Amino acid sequence: MVRINANFNKLPGSYLFSEIARRVAAYGEANPDRTLIRLGIGDVTRPLPAAVTAAMHKAVDEMATAQGFHGYGPEQGYDFLRQAIAQHDYKARGVDIQPNEIFVSDGAKSDCGNIGDIFGTDNVVAVCDPVYPVYVDTNAMAGRAGDYDAATGRWTNLIYMPCVAANGFSPAIPAEKVDLIYLCFPNNPTGAVATRAQLKAWVDHANATGAVILYDSAYEAFITDPAIPHSIFEIEGARTCAIEFRSFSKTAGFTGTRCAYTVIPKELEREGTSLNSLWNRRQCTKFNGVPYVVQRGAEAVYRPEGRAQVRETIQYYLNNAKIIRDGLAAAGLTVSGGENSPYIWAATPDGMGSWDFFDKLLREANVVTTPGAGFGPSGEGYIRLTAFGEAEATRQAVERIKAVL
Amino acid sequence: MVRINANFNKLPGSYLFSEIARRVAAYGEANPDRTLIRLGIGDVTRPLPAAVTAAMHKAVDEMATAQGFHGYGPEQGYDFLRQAIAQHDYKARGVDIQPNEIFVSDGAKSDCGNIGDIFGTDNVVAVCDPVYPVYVDTNAMAGRAGDYDAATGRWTNLIYMPCVAANGFSPAIPAEKVDLIYLCFPNNPTGAVATRAQLKAWVDHANATGAVILYDSAYEAFITDPAIPHSIFEIEGARTCAIEFRSFSKTAGFTGTRCAYTVIPKELEREGTSLNSLWNRRQCTKFNGVPYVVQRGAEAVYRPEGRAQVRETIQYYLNNAKIIRDGLAAAGLTVSGGENSPYIWAATPDGMGSWDFFDKLLREANVVTTPGAGFGPSGEGYIRLTAFGEAEATRQAVERIKAVL
Repeated sequence: MVRINANFNKLPGSYLFSEIARRVAAYGEANPDRTLIRLGIGDVTRPLPAAVTAAMHKAVDEMATAQGFHGYGPEQGYDFLRQAIAQHDYKARGVDIQPNEIFVSDGAKSDCGNIGDIFGTDNVVAVCDPVYPVYVDTNAMAGRAGDYDAATGRWTNLIYMPCVAANGFSPAIPAEKVDLIYLCFPNNPTGAVATRAQLKAWVDHANATGAVILYDSAYEAFITDPAIPHSIFEIEGARTCAIEFRSFSKTAGFTGTRCAYTVIPKELEREGTSLNSLWNRRQCTKFNGVPYVVQRGAEAVYRPEGRAQVRETIQYYLNNAKIIRDGLAAAGLTVSGGENSPYIWAATPDGMGSWDFFDKLLREANVVTTPGAGFGPSGEGYIRLTAFGEAEATRQAVERIKAVL
Repeated sequence: MVRINANFNKLPGSYLFSEIARRVAAYGEANPDRTLIRLGIGDVTRPLPAAVTAAMHKAVDEMATAQGFHGYGPEQGYDFLRQAIAQHDYKARGVDIQPNEIFVSDGAKSDCGNIGDIFGTDNVVAVCDPVYPVYVDTNAMAGRAGDYDAATGRWTNLIYMPCVAANGFSPAIPAEKVDLIYLCFPNNPTGAVATRAQLKAWVDHANATGAVILYDSAYEAFITDPAIPHSIFEIEGARTCAIEFRSFSKTAGFTGTRCAYTVIPKELEREGTSLNSLWNRRQCTKFNGVPYVVQRGAEAVYRPEGRAQVRETIQYYLNNAKIIRDGLAAAGLTVSGGENSPYIWAATPDGMGSWDFFDKLLREANVVTTPGAGFGPSGEGYIRLTAFGEAEATRQAVERIKAVL
């Protein structure tokens, strides 16, 4: 008789965004005349840049001919894309990353989840609180999280690093011994960024203890402050302790086109084994690469016209972020994020609960947000708003929120 | 200090196709004047069907507009594609599979590997010998295979089911208790197919013992004999014991375009838990769906013009298969496969070793094949040839082989 992976049954049933969808659907059915504006889920809305779609059309045409047809590509990604990434995302910022340290994939979500395959199940995992649920759930599935305690909203074997107003939403290095440390800057959901000095402390800690930092920089394109690092590899010493996850999703609108990459330096070893080699083996065995047409689209992001178009889209979203941030602040809410990030993290008024404030904004303002408590216990008392909407709708949403506060 | 997944270090170093590439490269460097013909790796060569590229162009155009833009899609695949699959791949053959039993993915290789996430690591796994290496390596990584014994070429905890001439390359049901049973028909590498009666015996066995059959039918499009089932779900009782993997790779030339799907019936439960629900949770947590543009391309495979174009391509490859099969048989080799399959499985002459015959064909005929021993000990004494080449090159390759036998 087949045994299932018992860890799956430990996962709490309702996923944050499913519960939001349920509440929104119920409200919508009861109030069919109301027009909702969604500032909740972090999906982009602007079209793909013209340079990207032009490159994709060209690649589709190639695939239609025997001469231009591309079958199985390299599991690690085509060299043309790995070269472009190394050049523009790293070398241009003074960071030496070689193409064979870059693994192109179908998404940072896949990579953040699948990376666990190469690590033992007995490692101690540290996550921020609030946190992107994928880090937690994938470790729970692998058996690293222990048991879920509904009373605390926490897993028994995870180390939680609170990110709260008192520490500026920047986690302290945990006192406990930890092995795998998930960091995400600019942060989802708080919108906080990490300074060079803060990242240096993490790198030094990881190198001193043998920990590995799993660094999610999927939102680096939103950094406007020149002093803020875009990559963990801008920090001295990171090549021996860090893995970085990047994505085209929020940079170039690839949420429905699917392309991302993971960087594992050649120097990164544990127990005498290269993690780059382990990941290469994992990917070659369980993955068959990203569509040729998509990789050509991603490459176009780095061409001059592609870069200009991407900058324009990012600026569009950053303008939305400013509208949200300034509007809510003017209405008296305490807000953070939204300056180097598409996410705005707003404290609820008068200590109201996250879900209560979510419900109030849904019913009274007809605006969908994300309750901070859904990202972890330390998110209680906050909501997350995203800048990925249409500009005019975003402006309206903010006016509606201001009117009910 | 981070511990790596120690199972990775148990994997034998050299992957079959890497070793082939090494030998071919060495020969090519030493003999730059020779033109090699490759009948080895199973990659397709014909362009994408015109219906597919037309649909992809249309989808790229949609992605270029705010109105037509698609962001995150459903992790399980768009309903338009799941409906088309249910209708054309199942209902048209009298099989009732609902769209919510179909999970669209980026590849059967990914799914065959990732499916292990939902099962406990203490299940006993049975594989054919010879075997598609992904089934073995992914279970080895998960810790289900035990240790690799270089002397036998086998893992200590796997149950091997020999597929040899004596049993017509159809495995016997193992005497040992097994939990997860990987079956692949039409088979890679032997090209063998399974009759309805043979599959019924497997289904009855699995239902009697609580085992789960992991059925890889990535090559079903090559079945020409109307009596041979295309799906395990054509067999009564399969809905309570089987998971099926399908792919657009070999059907519609998607090896570089990446689309596949996995079918898990709602009735399939173990330990009181729905495997459909477990896989849904796995995919929602670790996967973000297949590109919209690719899913539109896959949907076009089911349109009348798409189906006609796919039939034409399959017939092209089947003609190659016949050329190889008939040619090698005429030269005195014992061959099987190649009638309902793109793979031809040929016994080496005079009991020659697989790698020796591979080397002989490489050096004397300048034809690249795949040594059967690379797929497992019972593949010793065979080579695999694939029908995915260009027709004229395939014809030449067969003539060259005949000339050196």
